Amino acid sequence: MHLSEITHPNQLHGLSIRQLQQIARQIRDKHLQTVAATGGHLGPGLGVVELTLGLYQTLDLDCDKVIWDVGHQAYPHKLITGRYDNFHTLRQKDGIAGYLKRGESKFDHFGAGHASTSISAALGMALARDMKGEKFKVVAIIGDGALTGGMALECINHAGHLPKTNLLVVLNDNEMSISPNVGAIPRYLNKMRLSPPVQFIKDNFEEQVKQIPFVGESLSPELERIKEGMKRLAVPKVGAVFEELGFTYIGPVDGHNLEELIATFEQAHKMTGPVLVHVATTKGKGYEIAELDKVGYHAQNPFNVLTGKAVPSSKPKPPAYAKVFAHTLVKLAEQNPKIVGITAAMATGTGLDKLQAKLPDQYIDVGIAEQHAVTMSAGLAAEGIRPVVAIYSTFLQRAFDQIIHDVCIQNLPVFFCMDRAGIVGADGPTHQGMYDIAYLRCIPNMVVMAPKDEAELQRMVVTGINHTTGPIAMRTPRGNGYGVPLMEEGWEPVEIGKGEILRNGDDVLLLGYGTMVYPAMQVAEILNEHGIQATVINARFVKPLDTELILPLAKKIGRVVTLEEGCLMGGFGSAVAEALLDADIVVPVKRIGVPDVLVDHAEPNESKAELGLTSPQMAETVMQAFFSKQPSAVS
Amino acid sequence: MHLSEITHPNQLHGLSIRQLQQIARQIRDKHLQTVAATGGHLGPGLGVVELTLGLYQTLDLDCDKVIWDVGHQAYPHKLITGRYDNFHTLRQKDGIAGYLKRGESKFDHFGAGHASTSISAALGMALARDMKGEKFKVVAIIGDGALTGGMALECINHAGHLPKTNLLVVLNDNEMSISPNVGAIPRYLNKMRLSPPVQFIKDNFEEQVKQIPFVGESLSPELERIKEGMKRLAVPKVGAVFEELGFTYIGPVDGHNLEELIATFEQAHKMTGPVLVHVATTKGKGYEIAELDKVGYHAQNPFNVLTGKAVPSSKPKPPAYAKVFAHTLVKLAEQNPKIVGITAAMATGTGLDKLQAKLPDQYIDVGIAEQHAVTMSAGLAAEGIRPVVAIYSTFLQRAFDQIIHDVCIQNLPVFFCMDRAGIVGADGPTHQGMYDIAYLRCIPNMVVMAPKDEAELQRMVVTGINHTTGPIAMRTPRGNGYGVPLMEEGWEPVEIGKGEILRNGDDVLLLGYGTMVYPAMQVAEILNEHGIQATVINARFVKPLDTELILPLAKKIGRVVTLEEGCLMGGFGSAVAEALLDADIVVPVKRIGVPDVLVDHAEPNESKAELGLTSPQMAETVMQAFFSKQPSAVS
Repeated sequence: MHLSEITHPNQLHGLSIRQLQQIARQIRDKHLQTVAATGGHLGPGLGVVELTLGLYQTLDLDCDKVIWDVGHQAYPHKLITGRYDNFHTLRQKDGIAGYLKRGESKFDHFGAGHASTSISAALGMALARDMKGEKFKVVAIIGDGALTGGMALECINHAGHLPKTNLLVVLNDNEMSISPNVGAIPRYLNKMRLSPPVQFIKDNFEEQVKQIPFVGESLSPELERIKEGMKRLAVPKVGAVFEELGFTYIGPVDGHNLEELIATFEQAHKMTGPVLVHVATTKGKGYEIAELDKVGYHAQNPFNVLTGKAVPSSKPKPPAYAKVFAHTLVKLAEQNPKIVGITAAMATGTGLDKLQAKLPDQYIDVGIAEQHAVTMSAGLAAEGIRPVVAIYSTFLQRAFDQIIHDVCIQNLPVFFCMDRAGIVGADGPTHQGMYDIAYLRCIPNMVVMAPKDEAELQRMVVTGINHTTGPIAMRTPRGNGYGVPLMEEGWEPVEIGKGEILRNGDDVLLLGYGTMVYPAMQVAEILNEHGIQATVINARFVKPLDTELILPLAKKIGRVVTLEEGCLMGGFGSAVAEALLDADIVVPVKRIGVPDVLVDHAEPNESKAELGLTSPQMAETVMQAFFSKQPSAVS
Repeated sequence: MHLSEITHPNQLHGLSIRQLQQIARQIRDKHLQTVAATGGHLGPGLGVVELTLGLYQTLDLDCDKVIWDVGHQAYPHKLITGRYDNFHTLRQKDGIAGYLKRGESKFDHFGAGHASTSISAALGMALARDMKGEKFKVVAIIGDGALTGGMALECINHAGHLPKTNLLVVLNDNEMSISPNVGAIPRYLNKMRLSPPVQFIKDNFEEQVKQIPFVGESLSPELERIKEGMKRLAVPKVGAVFEELGFTYIGPVDGHNLEELIATFEQAHKMTGPVLVHVATTKGKGYEIAELDKVGYHAQNPFNVLTGKAVPSSKPKPPAYAKVFAHTLVKLAEQNPKIVGITAAMATGTGLDKLQAKLPDQYIDVGIAEQHAVTMSAGLAAEGIRPVVAIYSTFLQRAFDQIIHDVCIQNLPVFFCMDRAGIVGADGPTHQGMYDIAYLRCIPNMVVMAPKDEAELQRMVVTGINHTTGPIAMRTPRGNGYGVPLMEEGWEPVEIGKGEILRNGDDVLLLGYGTMVYPAMQVAEILNEHGIQATVINARFVKPLDTELILPLAKKIGRVVTLEEGCLMGGFGSAVAEALLDADIVVPVKRIGVPDVLVDHAEPNESKAELGLTSPQMAETVMQAFFSKQPSAVS
C-alpha cells in the first residue's frame, strides 16, 4: 500500500510492521519534500512518524479522539487523514493549515497553535464521554516542552485526581521545545530517558512484593534494617512524579520502534484512569541535517533538501525587526548590567538568542511559561532590575492577568516587547497578533507604543528602558523592516505620549500607528493624486495618546482616519474616537484595521488584500468615506 | 512586650518561645475582634500566626524579603509591621487593605490578591539579588490550594533548575483553598501530612548509604536481589516530587509549634538552592467555630465573636445575583443533563455549591486553575456538553488566552458567567472586575451580555445555555439584586443582540449596560425634573450591539450617553462610539464609566461616589455635557 492510498487512518489496521515502516518512509519523504518547498515545521513532524502510525494502529479513529498539542508536529497525521493530495498547499492561502483545525478534517478533533492545551481539552472530552455514557478512547499527545506550561500541569493535577476517567497522555519527549528545554521537569524527563525502560509497573505492586524473598514473612532484624535503609535511599521508581500525581507511568519507550510503540499503546489502552506513556523521540528523525541542528530545523523557510540550505530570496531583504531589536538591546545591555532579557521559549524568534550569546548573565529563558515570565519580571523590577520581556503578541495573551495584577496594579517598570504583533502570515489565526492594543490599553498605568520602522524601533527600545516609572509595551511586526538607515548607538528616546507630523494637508487627517504609518504616507500620496491633501501623523503611542497634537488637527481638518494593524474593536481607532468624544470634538472618524473576523493563514500581503488593508484599498476607503469618489483607477 | 508595642518585625528577635506565644495570643485576639467588626478574611490569618512569628524571628526584615501569596492570610504580618493602631480600619475606605500592598508598608514587598504568584515574584527578587551581588533572604509563602495554579508550577519547574539560587518556599498547607482543595497535588500533600516528619534528608544521601550494611561492599547475589526488589517497591521518600523537581524538601512541620518552626527555618536558611518547607497548619486555628467550619469562616461579614453568627443586617436584602444565578442554573440543569457547571475554586462565591449539592455529576471544580477550566470546557463543548463556566471577572483574566485560542477561534459553545464584574468593594484593585467588557469584546465569535437585574439574569442564563453556535459571556455584579419579582421556571430567553427601550424622550439617549440600566432610569428621572426628556435603552449586549435599535435613535436624538460599570478604555461606550462612527452618525457621545485609574478598596457606594457614578452625579454630568446647566440642586 502506498501512502497516497490512505485516506482514513483506520486503513493502517492490520498492516505489518514492515508495511508500516514503508509508510513511515513515505511520510518522511513527502513531509520533507513539501516543507522544503513551502516552508513550515520540519523537525517536530519527522520525530513523530512512528509514534503517529503506532498509535493510530491501536485506535479506531471513527470514534476515538486524538488531540495533538500545538499541532505543528501533526503533518504525519495530516498525511494519513485524507490530506495527502493537497499537502503541497501547506500553509498557503486556502491550502492546508500548518496546525490542526477542526474545520479542516473530521480527524482534527481539537485545534491548537499555542502549547500546553491538549491535556485539558482531552480531559474535557473524556469527561464528556463518561457523562454521555459513551465508550471511546481519548489521547492527548504533548511535548516535553509543552509540559512545562502551567495549564498542562493544572490538568495533570486535576486528571490525577480522577482514577475512573480513562485518559491517555502520550508524552512526546524530544528534549526540545523550539529551543532546548528549560527547567526541572525536562531535566527529570531526561533522567528517565537514560533509565532502563520500566514498563507496566503500576498495579503490580503486590506481585512485585511477592517476588522479593522474605517479604511477607517476618524479616530478620538485620534484613529489616536493610529494607528500611533501602527505603531511605529513596530511589524513586522511574516516573515517580507522575505516579505520585495519580498517573500510571509507562516508559520510556523508543519512539522510533514501531513494535515497542504498538505493544505499549495496546497495554496502555487496557488500563483504567489516567495513563502517561513516555515516548523518547528524536526531533528531525530521518533527516540527518535536521537531527544535527534541532533548533535550526524546528521550522524552516523553503530550503534545498540535499544541502539543507535556505533557498536564497531573489533580492536581499532589509533586516528583520527582531534582529534590529536584539542588536539594540544587546548594545544597551552591554552598557547597563541591570538590563535583563526574558523570554518564554522564544529565544530565536524574538532575537534574544543574540543576548544569550553575548551576555548570558543578562538573559533568562523560563521555558514555555509566559505567566511565570511576567510575574518573575515584576519581581526583578521590584528589586531595581530592568526586565525586558520579549514574548510574541499572541503568547503574551497568556500572561494577561499577570500583566494587570503583578505589573500594572503595582506600577512596576517592566518593558514588554511584543514581536509578531499584527498579521503573521502562514501561522494563521492562532498566531495572529491582533488583540494586544485592545487588551493592553485598557489597563491603568500601561504605556503602549509601536514604531513606524526599524530605526524608530531602536529609539523605542531606549524609550522603554528609560521608562522607570511604570510598565511599558512595544509592539513590532513579524518580518523585515524598510531598510532605513540605522544608527550603531546613541539612539534618542522618543518622548512618552508624543507623536510626530509627517506630512501636512488640510483635507483629511491620517493617523497611523506602528506598521500602518508608512502605508498612511502611501495613502496620502494616492490621495494627493486625486487632489486631496492629507496630514499624516505617526501616533507612536496609543496610550497615552498624543491628544495635544491630534485633537486640534482633528478639529481643524474635520475628517479623521485611523490606520492600524490590529483588531478594530477596542483598538487604536477606538482610542482616537474616545479622545475626540471626550474633548467634545464631534467629527467623522473612519477606522481602518482588522475587522471582527479570524484571519486565516496566508501570505501577509494576501491577508492584507483580503482585509482591504493595502495602501490603494485604504486610499479608496478614505475617498469613499469622505470624498464620495467612485471606485476609480486607484485599485 | 505587648503586640501594640511591636512596630518593626525585628523586635521579635530574641523573644522567648513563651513570649512569642503570648504575642501569638494577642494577634489572634486582635485579628478575631477586628474581622468580627469589619468583616474580612478570618481562617487563613488565624492559621499562620505561629508561622509568621517563627519565620520572622529567623529573618532580618530590614533586608530580607517575604512574599505572601494572595495576601489574605497576612493580617498577622500586618499587625507586627506597624499597622496595629490602624487595624480597625481594615478593608474600609482609606483604611488598611485586605491584601498586601507595596504602597501601604515597606514590609509589603510584593502585593497580591490573586493566587499562585508568590514563587514567581520571589524568584525574580532572588535572581535580582544575585545579579546585584547582594545578600538577603527571599521567602515565598504559598498555600496548598495556590500551589495547583499553573504559574506556581511553572515557577517550580524554573526554580528547581537553578541550584545556585537561594529561595525558600514555605508551603502553608491548611488542606483548603476557599473550599476543600482539588487534585492530585493536594492529595499528595495530604499523604505527606500523615507521614512521620522527615527533616533535613537532602544532601544526606551519602551518609545514609553508609548506614546501610553491606552497601559499598559487593553484595551477595541474594542481597543484590533484595536491594533491587526494594527499589522496585518504589517507596518514594516524603517530598519526592519536590526533590525530583530540584527542591530540597523539609517537612511536614507542625505549623503551630513555634520551636519546631524556628528550628526548621533556621535549618532551611543554611541550605543552598531552592528549599521547600512543608508546614501543616489549621485554618481558623484558635477560634473553634472557624476551625469547625473552614469554608464558612474563610472570609466573613461582621459577626458576633461568641456565637460566630453574622450580625443581622438592618433590613432584609433582595437575593444576591449569585444566588439567583445558581438557583436558575440548578433548575435548568435538572432538566438538561448535558449542562455542567465548572468553577475554579469559587464554588461558594459563584453559587455553584448549590449545583454541587443538587447535581454533583453536573459539577466540576478544577481547583485554582482557571486556564485548565476554560480549555477543559472547550473540550466538553466539542463533545456536545453545555459547559457553564462560573469564574469571577477578575480571575477569568487568567484564562484570556484560552478564551481566545481554545474557545473563540474554534467557535465552541462555552458559556462564561462572570460574577463580581464591576466594582467589588472591600477587596480592592486586584479584584475589581473592570476589564471584562474590553478584553472579551475584541475577540471574534464572542457574545457579551449583561442583565439589568436579577430577573433578566434568569432570562440570560437560559439565553446562554440555548446559544449553541458559539461562545457567550455574561457579567453580573457582586452583591444583591433589586428585589424584582422572580419566576420559578419558564424563563424566556432574550434575543441575542437585542436591547430594549425602557423610556422615551427626545432630548438625550441614555444607553445603560448591565448594572447601569437602573441608574440610567434614575438619571432620566432627575433629568426630567429639569425638563429634559431622555430615552433610556437597556443595551443588554455589548456584542453584538443592537445597532438596529440604537443607531436610528442616536441619529434622531443627536445626544448619546453611555453608562457602564467597567473601564472606559475599550468598554461599552467605546463600542457604541465605534458603531456610530462606522454608520457615519456623527453625534456627541458622553461616555460614563470607570476612568483609567485603579479603584481602591471601599464600600461600592463610596467608590461610585468617588468615580462620579452615583445617579445624581451622572445626571449632572449629562446636563453639563449637553445642556450647559450649572451644578445645581441635583447633588
